[in-house]
Amino acid sequence: MRAAVIGDYVGWMERQFVEELRLRLPAHPQLRLGVGDDAAVLRLSQRSDCVVTSDLLADGTHFRLPSDDLRRVGRKALAVNLSDLAAMAAQPVAAIVSLLLPRNGALATARRLYEGMLPLAEEFGVAIAGGDTNCWDGALAISVTAIGETTPAGLLRRDGAKAGDCLLVSGALGGSRLGKHFDFTPRVREALRWQRDFDLHAGIDISDGLAIDLRRLCEASNCGAEVELANVPVSAAAERWAAMSETRLSPLEHALSDGEDFELLLAAPPAVAQVMLREQTAADGRLTQIGHITAERGIRGRDAANNLHDLPTAGYEHGTPN
Amino acid sequence: MRAAVIGDYVGWMERQFVEELRLRLPAHPQLRLGVGDDAAVLRLSQRSDCVVTSDLLADGTHFRLPSDDLRRVGRKALAVNLSDLAAMAAQPVAAIVSLLLPRNGALATARRLYEGMLPLAEEFGVAIAGGDTNCWDGALAISVTAIGETTPAGLLRRDGAKAGDCLLVSGALGGSRLGKHFDFTPRVREALRWQRDFDLHAGIDISDGLAIDLRRLCEASNCGAEVELANVPVSAAAERWAAMSETRLSPLEHALSDGEDFELLLAAPPAVAQVMLREQTAADGRLTQIGHITAERGIRGRDAANNLHDLPTAGYEHGTPN
Repeated sequence: MRAAVIGDYVGWMERQFVEELRLRLPAHPQLRLGVGDDAAVLRLSQRSDCVVTSDLLADGTHFRLPSDDLRRVGRKALAVNLSDLAAMAAQPVAAIVSLLLPRNGALATARRLYEGMLPLAEEFGVAIAGGDTNCWDGALAISVTAIGETTPAGLLRRDGAKAGDCLLVSGALGGSRLGKHFDFTPRVREALRWQRDFDLHAGIDISDGLAIDLRRLCEASNCGAEVELANVPVSAAAERWAAMSETRLSPLEHALSDGEDFELLLAAPPAVAQVMLREQTAADGRLTQIGHITAERGIRGRDAANNLHDLPTAGYEHGTPN
Repeated sequence: MRAAVIGDYVGWMERQFVEELRLRLPAHPQLRLGVGDDAAVLRLSQRSDCVVTSDLLADGTHFRLPSDDLRRVGRKALAVNLSDLAAMAAQPVAAIVSLLLPRNGALATARRLYEGMLPLAEEFGVAIAGGDTNCWDGALAISVTAIGETTPAGLLRRDGAKAGDCLLVSGALGGSRLGKHFDFTPRVREALRWQRDFDLHAGIDISDGLAIDLRRLCEASNCGAEVELANVPVSAAAERWAAMSETRLSPLEHALSDGEDFELLLAAPPAVAQVMLREQTAADGRLTQIGHITAERGIRGRDAANNLHDLPTAGYEHGTPN
């Protein structure tokens, strides 16, 4: 990538790989200068702001080799970043891909990662603008930085929810680790369309589980929420996972806490939410109303017996250090 | 960083660290939205393009723990990216920092990396806009993506050198691993001033050694170069390194091939180069004319006896895989 022609620490593998990539990467109308100089140059649309997000995926933490397919890993490394751009209602423009490759079989690893990543980049009009490719004695790690731009419809932030707003969620939740965490389609198109057509107050993508990400949205917005537990869309995978796993969690609990759903959680005024629900088409990530925003802080769930309980915010948390 | 509030895989260490960072990071006039949403939002100057570069540094490859000071490692992770922006004559705006931290002592490691990084960010007006912080069982890796913007003076590319151009280099070369590879000041200010005041044809930063980076500049520009070997500015560190190391390379050979100098190599028409050399002040990275661009391809060095030889392009190359 970038560094092969540019930067530091260039080995033959990187040179060969970057040359392959240069030949393979399609042109992009906003990429003035791509792989091959000290940096890439992007032309954003007039009056757009630059929206930037980054996620780092590592073997043993976010995926497991050799059992996980490298193409799915490469696709996911880009997809999680596109999900973050979707959560801002930003139009994706480009991605920078930095690889830390195990020395053994590095070139084959890099190729397979890109085999998974490039079709997704093409699908969403994302230019692969550069990066850095390194070999080392450690395990595989992939850092992707995605760059998007704001649209005339403006930014979708997480701090704009208001008491009384309806909470909407796309798709169905839970059990993602049975496959969806690799194969999900980031909700970029839905987010751009909804932001263009409706007065949304706040949005976030569900990466760590509905309970945790709802808490984040509420904390940023200085409010709370009530979730109608019977309305939470529980995926078939959550049912399967609950039946298989030894955690003894219910399918609903999986839907609330598994994480890596990469669905959108939105807050919108009731009148807006009703139109969104009524007008949705089969092409949408199916929207479900799961509750509403409250002035009182805290996240509560209403159960079948109409009782309110604090919603535990366990989620998909890694990385507790010593 | 970003992911603590944003993204995936959030542990308590990351939450704590990001909260610390949020309190510590200064405001920045171009940062509309920083750490704390799904992505950061930057406002670039009107009519500017977005310039993006990324470098990944890993323990055992680009630094060695525990002998290297983590503050110097953190500083370097940002500095190498600023050097890439300098090589484009781009104004730095923001950086995204992704960390892969060894689980043991992760919080202390992250803090020390930032202790080294933040003063450099402040010195160059760079907003730390977000990132991703993860713990794992492997060694330390740091991926920094720097975002800059073009100025009215335009981009400095590596592909514009013309036969007859003078080759200028800032500072002195070689022996960087004795300390400069950590403590160099990226030539951002010099690059911006020179690009504003002079008609430069091409530029690159010297990350892999003068011989390699000159070859890159020439290949991109479809030309060659002749280097007056007696004029190459050899650093005192190159002299010391030649005396210490077992490679039996001369100080000049170190200056040509050590790499990690992070100086600028520029091509400018002779009349322009003469003015630049004449007008330089003590504040500049001292410029030296080291040769000129030729129409004939290939990189040749002229020795003391006035003989021309092909210049070997050995350099600081890592990462040869199986």
